[in-house]
Amino acid sequence: LRNGFPEVIFAQGKTPEQVVAIFAKLAEKNKNVLATRASQEMYEAVKQICPQAVYHPAARCITLRQKELPKRPGSILVISAGTADLPVAEEAAVTGEIMGNTVLRLYDVGVAGIHRLLDNHQLLSQASVIIVVAGMEGALASVVGGLVDKPVLAVPTSVGYGASFGGIAALLGMLNSCAAGVAVFNIDNGFGAAAMASSILRLKESSA
Amino acid sequence: LRNGFPEVIFAQGKTPEQVVAIFAKLAEKNKNVLATRASQEMYEAVKQICPQAVYHPAARCITLRQKELPKRPGSILVISAGTADLPVAEEAAVTGEIMGNTVLRLYDVGVAGIHRLLDNHQLLSQASVIIVVAGMEGALASVVGGLVDKPVLAVPTSVGYGASFGGIAALLGMLNSCAAGVAVFNIDNGFGAAAMASSILRLKESSA
Amino acid sequence: LRNGFPEVIFAQGKTPEQVVAIFAKLAEKNKNVLATRASQEMYEAVKQICPQAVYHPAARCITLRQKELPKRPGSILVISAGTADLPVAEEAAVTGEIMGNTVLRLYDVGVAGIHRLLDNHQLLSQASVIIVVAGMEGALASVVGGLVDKPVLAVPTSVGYGASFGGIAALLGMLNSCAAGVAVFNIDNGFGAAAMASSILRLKESSA
Amino acid sequence: LRNGFPEVIFAQGKTPEQVVAIFAKLAEKNKNVLATRASQEMYEAVKQICPQAVYHPAARCITLRQKELPKRPGSILVISAGTADLPVAEEAAVTGEIMGNTVLRLYDVGVAGIHRLLDNHQLLSQASVIIVVAGMEGALASVVGGLVDKPVLAVPTSVGYGASFGGIAALLGMLNSCAAGVAVFNIDNGFGAAAMASSILRLKESSA
Amino acid sequence: LRNGFPEVIFAQGKTPEQVVAIFAKLAEKNKNVLATRASQEMYEAVKQICPQAVYHPAARCITLRQKELPKRPGSILVISAGTADLPVAEEAAVTGEIMGNTVLRLYDVGVAGIHRLLDNHQLLSQASVIIVVAGMEGALASVVGGLVDKPVLAVPTSVGYGASFGGIAALLGMLNSCAAGVAVFNIDNGFGAAAMASSILRLKESSA
Amino acid sequence: LRNGFPEVIFAQGKTPEQVVAIFAKLAEKNKNVLATRASQEMYEAVKQICPQAVYHPAARCITLRQKELPKRPGSILVISAGTADLPVAEEAAVTGEIMGNTVLRLYDVGVAGIHRLLDNHQLLSQASVIIVVAGMEGALASVVGGLVDKPVLAVPTSVGYGASFGGIAALLGMLNSCAAGVAVFNIDNGFGAAAMASSILRLKESSA
Amino acid sequence: LRNGFPEVIFAQGKTPEQVVAIFAKLAEKNKNVLATRASQEMYEAVKQICPQAVYHPAARCITLRQKELPKRPGSILVISAGTADLPVAEEAAVTGEIMGNTVLRLYDVGVAGIHRLLDNHQLLSQASVIIVVAGMEGALASVVGGLVDKPVLAVPTSVGYGASFGGIAALLGMLNSCAAGVAVFNIDNGFGAAAMASSILRLKESSA
Amino acid sequence: LRNGFPEVIFAQGKTPEQVVAIFAKLAEKNKNVLATRASQEMYEAVKQICPQAVYHPAARCITLRQKELPKRPGSILVISAGTADLPVAEEAAVTGEIMGNTVLRLYDVGVAGIHRLLDNHQLLSQASVIIVVAGMEGALASVVGGLVDKPVLAVPTSVGYGASFGGIAALLGMLNSCAAGVAVFNIDNGFGAAAMASSILRLKESSA
Ligand SMILES: Nc1ncnc2c1ncn2[C@@H]1O[C@H](COP(=O)(O)O)[C@@H](O)[C@H]1O
Ligand SMILES: Nc1ncnc2c1ncn2[C@@H]1O[C@H](COP(=O)(O)O)[C@@H](O)[C@H]1O
Ligand SMILES: Nc1ncnc2c1ncn2[C@@H]1O[C@H](COP(=O)(O)O)[C@@H](O)[C@H]1O
Ligand SMILES: Nc1ncnc2c1ncn2[C@@H]1O[C@H](COP(=O)(O)O)[C@@H](O)[C@H]1O
Ligand SMILES: [Mg+2]
Ligand SMILES: [Mg+2]
Ligand SMILES: [Mg+2]
Ligand SMILES: [Mg+2]
Ligand SMILES: [Mg+2]
Ligand SMILES: [Mg+2]
Ligand SMILES: [Mg+2]
Ligand SMILES: [Mg+2]
Repeated sequence: LRNGFPEVIFAQGKTPEQVVAIFAKLAEKNKNVLATRASQEMYEAVKQICPQAVYHPAARCITLRQKELPKRPGSILVISAGTADLPVAEEAAVTGEIMGNTVLRLYDVGVAGIHRLLDNHQLLSQASVIIVVAGMEGALASVVGGLVDKPVLAVPTSVGYGASFGGIAALLGMLNSCAAGVAVFNIDNGFGAAAMASSILRLKESSA
Repeated sequence: LRNGFPEVIFAQGKTPEQVVAIFAKLAEKNKNVLATRASQEMYEAVKQICPQAVYHPAARCITLRQKELPKRPGSILVISAGTADLPVAEEAAVTGEIMGNTVLRLYDVGVAGIHRLLDNHQLLSQASVIIVVAGMEGALASVVGGLVDKPVLAVPTSVGYGASFGGIAALLGMLNSCAAGVAVFNIDNGFGAAAMASSILRLKESSA
Repeated sequence: LRNGFPEVIFAQGKTPEQVVAIFAKLAEKNKNVLATRASQEMYEAVKQICPQAVYHPAARCITLRQKELPKRPGSILVISAGTADLPVAEEAAVTGEIMGNTVLRLYDVGVAGIHRLLDNHQLLSQASVIIVVAGMEGALASVVGGLVDKPVLAVPTSVGYGASFGGIAALLGMLNSCAAGVAVFNIDNGFGAAAMASSILRLKESSA
Repeated sequence: LRNGFPEVIFAQGKTPEQVVAIFAKLAEKNKNVLATRASQEMYEAVKQICPQAVYHPAARCITLRQKELPKRPGSILVISAGTADLPVAEEAAVTGEIMGNTVLRLYDVGVAGIHRLLDNHQLLSQASVIIVVAGMEGALASVVGGLVDKPVLAVPTSVGYGASFGGIAALLGMLNSCAAGVAVFNIDNGFGAAAMASSILRLKESSA
Repeated sequence: LRNGFPEVIFAQGKTPEQVVAIFAKLAEKNKNVLATRASQEMYEAVKQICPQAVYHPAARCITLRQKELPKRPGSILVISAGTADLPVAEEAAVTGEIMGNTVLRLYDVGVAGIHRLLDNHQLLSQASVIIVVAGMEGALASVVGGLVDKPVLAVPTSVGYGASFGGIAALLGMLNSCAAGVAVFNIDNGFGAAAMASSILRLKESSA
Repeated sequence: LRNGFPEVIFAQGKTPEQVVAIFAKLAEKNKNVLATRASQEMYEAVKQICPQAVYHPAARCITLRQKELPKRPGSILVISAGTADLPVAEEAAVTGEIMGNTVLRLYDVGVAGIHRLLDNHQLLSQASVIIVVAGMEGALASVVGGLVDKPVLAVPTSVGYGASFGGIAALLGMLNSCAAGVAVFNIDNGFGAAAMASSILRLKESSA
Repeated sequence: LRNGFPEVIFAQGKTPEQVVAIFAKLAEKNKNVLATRASQEMYEAVKQICPQAVYHPAARCITLRQKELPKRPGSILVISAGTADLPVAEEAAVTGEIMGNTVLRLYDVGVAGIHRLLDNHQLLSQASVIIVVAGMEGALASVVGGLVDKPVLAVPTSVGYGASFGGIAALLGMLNSCAAGVAVFNIDNGFGAAAMASSILRLKESSA
Repeated sequence: LRNGFPEVIFAQGKTPEQVVAIFAKLAEKNKNVLATRASQEMYEAVKQICPQAVYHPAARCITLRQKELPKRPGSILVISAGTADLPVAEEAAVTGEIMGNTVLRLYDVGVAGIHRLLDNHQLLSQASVIIVVAGMEGALASVVGGLVDKPVLAVPTSVGYGASFGGIAALLGMLNSCAAGVAVFNIDNGFGAAAMASSILRLKESSA
C-alpha cells in the first residue's frame, strides 16, 4: 500500500550528517526518496553516498527516483502569485512529480494584474486540482476559487513584511476565502498541498 | 455547468424575511437549494412560501430538492470528536448529501478514547474522502490522517473554553498536523469542507 | 474654512437623549449635520426637535442638510463585496454625499465572481477615487487596486466568522495588498474613508 | 497610461544578481526605474551595468531617471517623528520624487516636543498631501490629522522595542486615530504612501 | 497606617446583595468607603443600610465619608480625550478625592484638536501629578508627557471599535510613549491611577 | 529537606565563565548539581574545575553526582513524538534521573503512526507518571491521556514552522486536551515536567 | 479499573433536557456521577428523575453518590486568590471529593496580602498536593510553588478585566512561573486540576 | 527648568559614530549626559572625545557628570527578581543616580523564595519609591505592591522563554496586578521607570 508514495525527509533543522544518514537508510528500501527544505550543502553530502540523487535548487528539494511510476490520470496545476513565492510553489511541484503526477505550472499571476491570470483560463480548465501559492494578502486563492469548479488547495507563504506577520495575513485570507471549495495548508507547506493533491488524483484510479 | 451544485444561502446574520426572499428567488430556477446557519424560525418562514423545503435541526440547514441527482460514485465519511461538534458535522453531512454524494457518519470518536475510532477502521477504508470535525485541541485530524491514505478535510470547531479561543487551538492544531495530506477549513465551516469533498468526488466522473 | 464639512456625531454608545442634545446644538450653527452609527430609535428622538433630519437606515446615519453645497468636481465610487458589507458601504456613501461629493455605487462584486466586477470596468475608469468595502479575506481591494491607477481607499468590515476575527483577516489582507496605492482604514470605518475621499476631491478645487 | 509611473523593484530578499537582472530589463524600456529596500552592495552591482543609476543611502533606494517628467502641480510633505524613522521617510520622499512630484521634508518633530511641529505650521498649510512617518506609539498622525484639513497618509514604522511589537503599536494607533481623514499603510511602507500621494496629485491634472 | 486610605470594594461582577454586605462590614470600621464599578441599582441597595452614602453616576462609584481628611498639599489633574472616556476619568477623580486629594479636571481635550489642550497650559503647570485618560490611539498621553516635567499616569480606555481591540491600541500606544516619564495602568483602571497619584502626593508629607 | 533535590543552574543566556562560577559554588555543598540548556563549550569550561561532571549532549545538560540517592519507588516514562523533540525529552529524562528516579524512554511515537504507540502499551501501564513531549499540534498528549489512568505531564516543544508559532499550537492543543488529567508546562520546559514528576513520586515515600 | 472515578458530564452548552438524559443513563450504572458547569435550572430537572442528586451552587456542580469510596490516603489543598475565583476553586474541591479524596480549602489569600498566606503555612505543609486557583496576574502559583516542595497544580481563572484578556494574563503567568514544579491547566479548569490531583493521590495506593 | 535632568541618548540601533557625534554635541552644553543601551564598543569611541565619560557595563550605560547635583531628599529602591534581570535593573539604577537621586538596590529576590524579600522588609519601608524589575511571570510587582504603601513602578523584562513571549507574560502580569498602586512601563524600560521615580522625588522639593 501507499503505492508510489516516496519516503520523505523534512531536512530543515537537521545537520547534513543527519540528512545523509536518514537518506541512506531510506534509499536502501528501493523506493523513491524526497527530502524537502534541503540546502545545497546537504545535497553535496547526500550525493557522496547516493550519486543518482538530484537537487532542485528552486524547490530546495533532493529527489531520488529508483522506481518508475505508471502515469497517473489527471494533473495538478501549481499557480503562484509572485516571484518570492517560487520556493514554496516549486516544493509543491517537485513533490507532486515525485509522487507520480503530471504537474503544470503558472507562476507570477498575482491579483494586482488580474488579466495575466484570466489570459491563462485554459490552463485552469485543463487541470484536475489546483494548488495556489501566495503570500502578502493571499487574495489569489479566492480569485482562482471563484473561477473554477474543482479542488483549490491554498498555501499561504511567509512572503511579505510588516503586518504580513510571516504569513499570517495570507493564512487568514485563505481561511476566510469568499469562494467555496478552498482548502488551506500551513504557511509555506507546499509539500502538504501536493501530498493532498496526489491523494485526490489517486481517487480517480481507485474503486472506493 | 456546476452540474448538480445547489444554490446556497448563508443565512446567519440575515433576517427571516431576507432568507425567504432569497430562497424564493433561487427556488424559481428549478434547482436544489441549501440554506446553512438557518434557525427554526427562518424555516417556518420559508415553509410558508415553499412547503417542500425540509429543515435539518441538528445541521441548522434548510434544503429544497427539486431536481434528482444521479448517484455519484464514491462516498464522504464525516467523523466528529464530541457531541458538541454535531452541528458542524451535520452541516457538512447535509451539504454533502444535497450536492449528490453518499455520506457516511461516524460521530463521538474523540482521541481520548482512541479505541472507538480504531474499532471503526472498516468505515475509514471504505470512504473516498474523510471530513474530520473536532474542537478543543483538534487532535482527531492528525490521528485519522495517520491511519488513512486518502484526502482528510479537517474542520476545527469553536467548541471548548478558556484557551481554546473560540476554535483557534483546534485550527492551529490541524494546520500543524504531523500527518501529511490534511487540509484545513475555517472554524465551524462544515459547508466548505463538504463543498471541497464534493468537488473531489466529481473528479472521479470527469475526464480531466 | 473646512468649507462644507458637516458637523459630525459618532452616535454609537451614546443614549438617544445625548444624541438629541448634541444634534440640537450643532444644528443651531446652520451647518449640515451627520450622525453615524445611529439607530432608528435615535432618529425618532432627533426628529422631534429637528423634523427636516433624514434617516438612512441602510447606512445607520442621520443627516440634516441646511446649507446647499456647490457641486464639487470628480466623483467617489463605493464598491462592496457582499450584501453583509452594505451598512459600511452605505455609511461611506452617505458621508460622501453630505460632504458635497458625487457618489457612485457598485455593490455585491466579490472576487469569487470576478467577472461581475470586470463587467463594470467603465464605472471604475469614470470615478476619481474608489472606496472598496469588503469583509472576510478583503481580496477585493487588491483586485481593484490592480485594475485602476487612482486612489483606492480600503475599508475592512467585521463580516465573517471563525478566523475572520471580527475583521482582522480583511484588515491584514488590505494592509498587505500586493497592489500599490491602496490605503487602509479601521474595521467598519466607512466614515473615515469617505472623509479622506472628500478631502482628496477638495484638492482638485484648491490651488495648493 | 500610468504616465510617468516608474518601473519598481522591491529589492529586499533578492540577491544582487537578481536585482541587476531585473534592473537591466526594466531600464531597456527607456522608463524611469526605482528599486526600494536596496543595499549599497546591490547598488554597486547595478552601477556596473547602468552607470547613471543613483543610490540614496538614507532611503535605501536606487533610482534611474531616463525620462524627464513635467512638473506636477501641488506638493507632498513628508513628516517624521524620530531619527530612527528616517529610512522609511526617505523611502517615501525618494519615491514621491521619482514619480514626478515636489516633495517637502519636515523631520524629527515627534509629539513629545509638540512645539517644534507647531512652529512649522506654515509648511503644513502649504502642502497638498501629508505623509506622516512614525514608530513607537504613532501619535504624530493624530496630531497632524487634527491640525490640517487635507489628506494625511500615515506610515507606522517598526521603530521601538518591547511592546511596540515591530510596529504593531504604531499601526494600531494610526488605525484608531481620533482625527478624521487619516489613511494607513503597512508597517515601514513608505513606498506605498508615496504611490498613493502621487496618485492623489495626479487627480489635480485629470478631468475625471 | 495607610492613613486616610479608604476601604475599597470592586463591585463589578458582584450582586447588589454582596455589595451591601461588604459595604456594611467596612462602614462599621468608621473609615471612609469607596465602591467602584457600582451600578445605580447597587447604590439603591446600599442606601437602605447606609443613607449617607453618595452615588457618583458618571464615575459609577459609591462613596461614604465618615472621617474628615486634612487637606493634603499638591493636586491631581485628570485629563480626558473624549466624552466616552468620562466614566474612567471620573472613577479616577472620585477615587482621588475620597483619598484626600485636591482633584482638578480637564476633559475633552483629544489630540485631534491640540489647541484646546495647549490653551489650558496653566492647568498643566499648576498640578503636581497628571492622570491622562484616553481610548482609541491613546496619543494624548505622549503629548501631555512631552509638555510637562511631572509624573504622568496614563490610563487607556476601552473606547473605540474595530482595531482598537477593547483598549489594546491605546494601551500599546501608552506603553510605547515617546515621552519619558509616562507610567501605564490596566485598561479602564482609573482607580489604580488615582491610588498611585495619591501615594505620590503622600510622599510630600512624609519624611522618607 | 528537599532531600535529594539537586542544585540547578539554568545555563542559557549565561556566559561559560558565569556557569563555571555558579557550578563551582554549588559543587562545594557536596550536593548533586544539574545545569540545563548548557552547551558543549560550557561543559568544557566546567570540566576544568570539576572533572567528574558529565555532559549529556542530547539533553544539553551537565550533571554532577556527588551523593548517591536511594532508589525511589515508581518510575517516570518520557514519551516523545518526533526526533526533533529529542532535546526536550532528554532534558526531562536527565533531570528525572539526577533527581533520583527511574526513567523509561519511548521516543518517536507521533500520532501520525498511532500503532507504534499502541504496540508499547505495556510500557504505558508500567510507569507511574508519564511525561509527553511533542511539538507541532501536540496531539500525542491527548491520545496518551486517553489511554492511561495516571498523571500525564505534557510539554509542548517549539518544533514546527509557520502556524506552529514557536510552540504555541502545541501549547494550546495540550491546554485544551479532551482527555482529563493532563497538566501542561511551558514550551520546551522538560526540566519543569521532570521536577513535577519527581515531586509526585516523592509522595509515595511520604506520609502526608 | 478507573476505580472510584465517577462518570462525568460537562453541562455547559447543553440543554437541561440533554443533561437529564445523560445523567439518567450514567446513574443507571450504579456509579457516582458528577456534572460540572451545571446551572440551578439543570439541577431542578435532574432532581426530578434522581432525587438523591445534590447541587453545589458555589461550584456549579451536581453530584450523585451511589457508591461509597474507601478513604484514600493524603489530601488535596485548594487555595484561591480572590472571592471571584470561588466558582473555579469549588469546582476543583467538589471534583476532588467525589473522586474520593480528602479536600482542604484555603480561600482569599491573594499575594497582595502575602501574610494571610504565610500565616497558614501549616495547611501548606499538611497537604499532599496543592491546587492554586487565581485570576488577574496569577502570581499566587509562583509564591506557593516557592514555599512548598510538593506538586502544585495551577488553574488560571477568567477573573479580571482589560488586559487580563479573560484569563490569558494568569495563564501566561503560571506557565512562566519562576518556581519549579508548577503544572498548569486550561483557564477555569478546576475539574482538570482535581482529576490530576486525584490520579496523583491514587499513586500512593498503587504498586506501580 | 528640567533642573538637573541629563541629556539622554538611546544608543541602541545607532552606530558608534552616531553615538559619538550626538554625545559630543550634548556634552558641549555643560550638562550631564546619559546614553542607555550602549555597548562597550560605543563607549570606547565616546572615550576618545570625552575621557571623563564613565561606562557602566552591567547597565549598558555611558554617563558623563559635568555638573554636580544637590542631594535630593528621599530615595529610590530598585528590586529585581533574578540575575538575568540585572541589565534592566542597573539601567534603572544608573539613570536614577545621574538624575540626582539616592538609589538603593535589592537584587535576586524572586517570589519563588519569598523569604529573602521579607527579610529585607526594612529596606522596603526606608525607600520613597520602589522600582520592581522582573521577567518570567512578573509576580514580584504584586507581592511588593501588597507589602508597601508607596509608589511601585513595575518594569517587565524580556527574560524567559517559550510562553513568556519576550516579556509579554510579565507585562500582562504587572498590568493586572491585584495590588493597588502599581504602575507599569514598557518591557525592559528601566530608564522610563527611573525617570518617573525621579520626577516623583522632585515633587518633594517643589511647592506645586
Ligand atoms: N456555512 C457556511 N460557511 C461559509 N460559507 C458559506 C456557508 N454556507 C454558505 N456559504 C457561502 O456563502 C455563499 C452565499 O452567501 P450569501 O450570498 O451571503 O447568502 C455561498 O455561495 C457559499 O459559498
Ligand atoms: N463611523 C465613524 N467611525 C469613526 N469615527 C467617526 C465615525 N463617525 C464619526 N466619527 C468621528 O467622531 C467624531 C465625533 O465623535 P463624538 O464627539 O464622540 O460624537 C467626528 O468628528 C468624527 O471624526
Ligand atoms: N476599578 C478598579 N480597578 C481595579 N482594581 C480595583 C478597582 N476598584 C477597586 N480595586 C481593587 O479591588 C480591591 C477590592 O476588591 P474586592 O475585594 O474584590 O472588592 C481593592 O482593594 C482595590 O485594590
Ligand atoms: N530548563 C529549564 N526551564 C525552566 N526553568 C529551569 C530550567 N532549568 C532550571 N530551571 C530553573 O531555574 C532555576 C535556576 O535558575 P538560575 O538561578 O538562573 O540558574 C532552577 O532552580 C530551576 O527552578
Ligand atoms: Mg470554486
Ligand atoms: Mg494520511
Ligand atoms: Mg492601482
Ligand atoms: Mg484632518
Ligand atoms: Mg514629561
Ligand atoms: Mg487519562
Ligand atoms: Mg515548589
Ligand atoms: Mg501597595
